[in-house]
Amino acid sequence: MNFHTRKWVKPEDLNPNGTLFGGSLLRWIDEEAAIYAICQLDNQRVVTKFMSEINFVSSARQGDIIELGMIATHFGNTSITLRCEVRNKITRKSILTVEKMVFVNLDENGEPAPHGQTKICYADEAFARNRGNRPPVAQPPVGDTDAGARAEADTMH
Amino acid sequence: MNFHTRKWVKPEDLNPNGTLFGGSLLRWIDEEAAIYAICQLDNQRVVTKFMSEINFVSSARQGDIIELGMIATHFGNTSITLRCEVRNKITRKSILTVEKMVFVNLDENGEPAPHGQTKICYADEAFARNRGNRPPVAQPPVGDTDAGARAEADTMH
Amino acid sequence: MNFHTRKWVKPEDLNPNGTLFGGSLLRWIDEEAAIYAICQLDNQRVVTKFMSEINFVSSARQGDIIELGMIATHFGNTSITLRCEVRNKITRKSILTVEKMVFVNLDENGEPAPHGQTKICYADEAFARNRGNRPPVAQPPVGDTDAGARAEADTMH
Amino acid sequence: MNFHTRKWVKPEDLNPNGTLFGGSLLRWIDEEAAIYAICQLDNQRVVTKFMSEINFVSSARQGDIIELGMIATHFGNTSITLRCEVRNKITRKSILTVEKMVFVNLDENGEPAPHGQTKICYADEAFARNRGNRPPVAQPPVGDTDAGARAEADTMH
Amino acid sequence: MNFHTRKWVKPEDLNPNGTLFGGSLLRWIDEEAAIYAICQLDNQRVVTKFMSEINFVSSARQGDIIELGMIATHFGNTSITLRCEVRNKITRKSILTVEKMVFVNLDENGEPAPHGQTKICYADEAFARNRGNRPPVAQPPVGDTDAGARAEADTMH
Amino acid sequence: MNFHTRKWVKPEDLNPNGTLFGGSLLRWIDEEAAIYAICQLDNQRVVTKFMSEINFVSSARQGDIIELGMIATHFGNTSITLRCEVRNKITRKSILTVEKMVFVNLDENGEPAPHGQTKICYADEAFARNRGNRPPVAQPPVGDTDAGARAEADTMH
Repeated sequence: MNFHTRKWVKPEDLNPNGTLFGGSLLRWIDEEAAIYAICQLDNQRVVTKFMSEINFVSSARQGDIIELGMIATHFGNTSITLRCEVRNKITRKSILTVEKMVFVNLDENGEPAPHGQTKICYADEAFARNRGNRPPVAQPPVGDTDAGARAEADTMH
Repeated sequence: MNFHTRKWVKPEDLNPNGTLFGGSLLRWIDEEAAIYAICQLDNQRVVTKFMSEINFVSSARQGDIIELGMIATHFGNTSITLRCEVRNKITRKSILTVEKMVFVNLDENGEPAPHGQTKICYADEAFARNRGNRPPVAQPPVGDTDAGARAEADTMH
Repeated sequence: MNFHTRKWVKPEDLNPNGTLFGGSLLRWIDEEAAIYAICQLDNQRVVTKFMSEINFVSSARQGDIIELGMIATHFGNTSITLRCEVRNKITRKSILTVEKMVFVNLDENGEPAPHGQTKICYADEAFARNRGNRPPVAQPPVGDTDAGARAEADTMH
Repeated sequence: MNFHTRKWVKPEDLNPNGTLFGGSLLRWIDEEAAIYAICQLDNQRVVTKFMSEINFVSSARQGDIIELGMIATHFGNTSITLRCEVRNKITRKSILTVEKMVFVNLDENGEPAPHGQTKICYADEAFARNRGNRPPVAQPPVGDTDAGARAEADTMH
Repeated sequence: MNFHTRKWVKPEDLNPNGTLFGGSLLRWIDEEAAIYAICQLDNQRVVTKFMSEINFVSSARQGDIIELGMIATHFGNTSITLRCEVRNKITRKSILTVEKMVFVNLDENGEPAPHGQTKICYADEAFARNRGNRPPVAQPPVGDTDAGARAEADTMH
Repeated sequence: MNFHTRKWVKPEDLNPNGTLFGGSLLRWIDEEAAIYAICQLDNQRVVTKFMSEINFVSSARQGDIIELGMIATHFGNTSITLRCEVRNKITRKSILTVEKMVFVNLDENGEPAPHGQTKICYADEAFARNRGNRPPVAQPPVGDTDAGARAEADTMH
């Protein structure tokens, strides 16, 4: 399992008892799992369908850094199943685990659709598969006729 | 007056003096009043038009549970008038009251429109009146051709 | 099961596909369940310990009103178990259910402590049990020596 | 009346009908009024006590810029009364006005206390009155013994 | 440089060390700078293109009031360059400065477009230039046929 | 450079033009950089001191997944310098880079203090160095005397 996303527990994430609010943690997990599913299925239209039981093993204090780990455990025809663990980044003490989170792959009409994936796709493969497919939103350059601004850009440092 | 929605006062809701921020409370009231108006008028397009004066009688501490009560006091042709009270859920001590909040019923062009309601509609009546009218957004099932996933769904517990 | 708290699905609650973000929904459930547990156990120090599996049956659209229902299903010595359902307020179509959410009752040192409750406590009983126990945070009156302000308060309408 | 704080209406501020959510607007007003009261009374411990009625004259669209104006209209012994207007920054079309918002000045025990102010204090006077009174929280310098970092700081551009 | 927008540092704005979170401050600066650019260029479609280096000179505590100042320092053909300072509202102690923030003016297709401005436009000029151009979103009146509601509106005070 | 934390661009992160709000992005960068500095310096008390210039190369759309990369480029006596890049997770197209972000290591009094680190510490080393040092906040078990709850826990699946 790879642990990617980290969170710094800030006052806005606390419950009134001063520890990490469980609802904030569940929100983080759902976002990270959706990101993992989107990357594996190469499709932005996925929805959470199922979460297995959650045992809150330990909590976190203000200032703690936690990390969220995900791994695909099953590729269905139109679905993907993940396992998730959240732990303290420094001590690696487990905070909670979710054995199964199921996401469904949707087509443009919001209907379940086969995704064609059968195994974990690593970042390099994902990159290769998308090369050239999605032109980014270019942040507009300073306009061609704007000599003053270009000069400024040249001397901005 | 019925009290429905409750809030748990968390650090994110406090002012710098450590009590409930008045602005957070006003935000909660406006949402709850809009919900009440929408349910009574059976129309999602309603807007806040008027609030009468507000006397902040007491405040709330971190960890307190507060509840918001609403009741319709007048049905106009295109408007509805509500009375609102916020109080501590446990002690029932009043936090504030707003005697009149007026919402206006809009049509699809954003113009005021008669709503046809003349008295408070209780939940059972609202349910009866809407039976079958609004199909929900189905969370997509695992696809029909996905035998593996269906098998998994059967054994997921 | 009683349904109390309602939410109005606003743009800030949506996922990038334009339906209710599952993480927002989980956050709302955890807060409402904590509120229910606090009221039943008459103690603000409770923590989420366990959630059973969650099946996302349907979703919600922007503008929908949803309501969250809770009921206590078991009183342990130091814990309480709840059942939760979330549904569309108008159509009563189920969005999800959680069969078991377990909260633990803590003492002042954060240790599990017996709570002494054995059955559902209704609002009137909770009120009677707390009568006079918790003086509210008074919103300060205009000071006694402030004749001008008192006169103003008298004529403020 | 001076208009200081501005807001850019973003998707997170909208109601489900796509216009500025009234609750967001009320939250902004309460914060701006508290800031104005704190500056006038030269005391961070102030609380909202009263708001007179609010007539929502017009709304705002995503992308609009609105500005909030405040002016003190009465100085009591322990209170201050403000008038507030919110308008579109470009067209100056009024969005709403609140004729009276009353804030109370508190001492260190949270009790109403005379504030000693009798007229509007402009920024230059406020500055003069506080000169030298409140040392800021210094952002720590790179430590004295850290020659490498100091050299780096010298060449950082 | 004029200082307009103010912020009251609340618990939701703090880092886990209890001082103002740098990320919150950067978010506020970007919004205020966008507002300034939009007003100067008379166009809502502007994007952040460049920020020069930022030296965090001092921080802020919970309860502090800070103010954000902006001034245009260069008008390019399709861009505008601003200087920004953030300081404590009461003590005027600087928190940080950004020498250059460059925004680009876009046309309806998201392409850089000449904005035609060459000098700072003050509020009165901006108002004159827009007079009558942008009708506001009227908050709908109570409908004409709603005699009851009109009578109520007349007596609402 | 390692890319860890990912974000899913949701409606709450957009500017009024419908692309990723620059202020949201800056907030994410500051949090991720603080996390990286804390892990490297093995100290939760760090503050942002300096950011070098930022060139916004491209933006992001709703639904995009972006990832934030950090690497330490210099260890001072009391400071650490990082380089940061934000890019689209799928296409790897750069969104922005920040060549230098400097954080200062503080002692318990908020004064700069030597951190004793001289090179990048990888996760396994950080784990080894902290083994046993920081007992986690245990999520309280169901109490020992609560036979019913323990039985329930055994049969909860």
